[in-house]
Amino acid sequence: MTIKAYIYDAYGTLFDVHSVTEKAEFLFKGHGKEISEEWRKKQVEYFMLHQLTERYIPFSEITRNALLYTLKKLSLPCNEDALDHLMTAYLELQTYEDVHETLQQLQNSDVKQLIYSNGTNDMLQPLVKKRKLDGLLHVLSVDDIKQYKPSPAAYKYAHEELGVNRDEVLFMSSNFWDITGAASYGFKTAWINRAKLPLDLLGIKPDFEFRNLSELLEHKTKRSSQ
Amino acid sequence: MTIKAYIYDAYGTLFDVHSVTEKAEFLFKGHGKEISEEWRKKQVEYFMLHQLTERYIPFSEITRNALLYTLKKLSLPCNEDALDHLMTAYLELQTYEDVHETLQQLQNSDVKQLIYSNGTNDMLQPLVKKRKLDGLLHVLSVDDIKQYKPSPAAYKYAHEELGVNRDEVLFMSSNFWDITGAASYGFKTAWINRAKLPLDLLGIKPDFEFRNLSELLEHKTKRSSQ
Repeated sequence: MTIKAYIYDAYGTLFDVHSVTEKAEFLFKGHGKEISEEWRKKQVEYFMLHQLTERYIPFSEITRNALLYTLKKLSLPCNEDALDHLMTAYLELQTYEDVHETLQQLQNSDVKQLIYSNGTNDMLQPLVKKRKLDGLLHVLSVDDIKQYKPSPAAYKYAHEELGVNRDEVLFMSSNFWDITGAASYGFKTAWINRAKLPLDLLGIKPDFEFRNLSELLEHKTKRSSQ
Repeated sequence: MTIKAYIYDAYGTLFDVHSVTEKAEFLFKGHGKEISEEWRKKQVEYFMLHQLTERYIPFSEITRNALLYTLKKLSLPCNEDALDHLMTAYLELQTYEDVHETLQQLQNSDVKQLIYSNGTNDMLQPLVKKRKLDGLLHVLSVDDIKQYKPSPAAYKYAHEELGVNRDEVLFMSSNFWDITGAASYGFKTAWINRAKLPLDLLGIKPDFEFRNLSELLEHKTKRSSQ
């Protein structure tokens, strides 16, 4: 197997969506963790439902709607300022600690690198810049084609942009729904199982399972020396 | 607005999926409630992902896979007997208490009545019979066309089976994802909001919101007398 391109999912894979917890806790004392969890849960549910019902709206709107629902469900008072403040947190998410170093080490390898996300460019670009990844790899958004991952159309777009064979792409995500879509499409997959979850039973087995992104480096080194 | 057909979703709307809790509690003491909740959560997630990735498998398999995952995630020992036992519970779910009477009262009205479910016929038929609904209304399964709700294709199939206009159908479900799909397709919708949840922000507002199914009767009576 020759891998010619690495694709990385963004939210949950490179960027920790739960780094909004601190801001949420500051704004809504005692509720930071549950806001962060419900917000992410609803965000995923909402883009899946928009995709399933064939009514695309941008991820930025979905993220805001998911936050609004979350605050309503938790009976927390919500004003525009608090909403804006929390939405801004999404432009400043922390990377997981192994991310920057791994991407940097791979920068000059012969493998193309790409972030491919359900996020919109106006969410992704400031974030990638803020976390100093902008020089390291390109960013591609499903917003260009208005089809969310994990639909086959979404992976097809990234595939066409890369111009390599399907099985020459290693697609990495911490989200198993994303692995399911990528593997169904025909990419090689590495599940970055940060949360140490059991394998979902969706008829898909990822080619690799890593605990974190730096295991990709170890894996690459091992293969090169064989 | 003239309504010529009522469509009822099955799981969560007529039948209480959490009536498996007792059996789960008997088999796995202290874990009944969390098994039931995780099982349902995974079941919904799994059929959505199969639909999104265009890889249909029947709901009976999805339900079993979701149960297997649940037991694994909760680190509960699982053998075939326990699995079979819990799967059987799905053929004997309780109806909500207002269901039988409501359906019976509507049986001889001029409105067609249909259960339309993601479940397979071999799950639905024994259940409907067990709960003595088999004489009251017809049952239709998405398994005939292998497209899950809430995809537009799924609602189209039920629509064609009924042979009335889209806006002459009142589609009832407790699952907001189902209301979203039905309303997007063009059915009139009544959200049976048993759990008293806030309205999801998916760009869809149901035509009616009922706390339970018997409110349909009150609504119908009110309209007739106007």
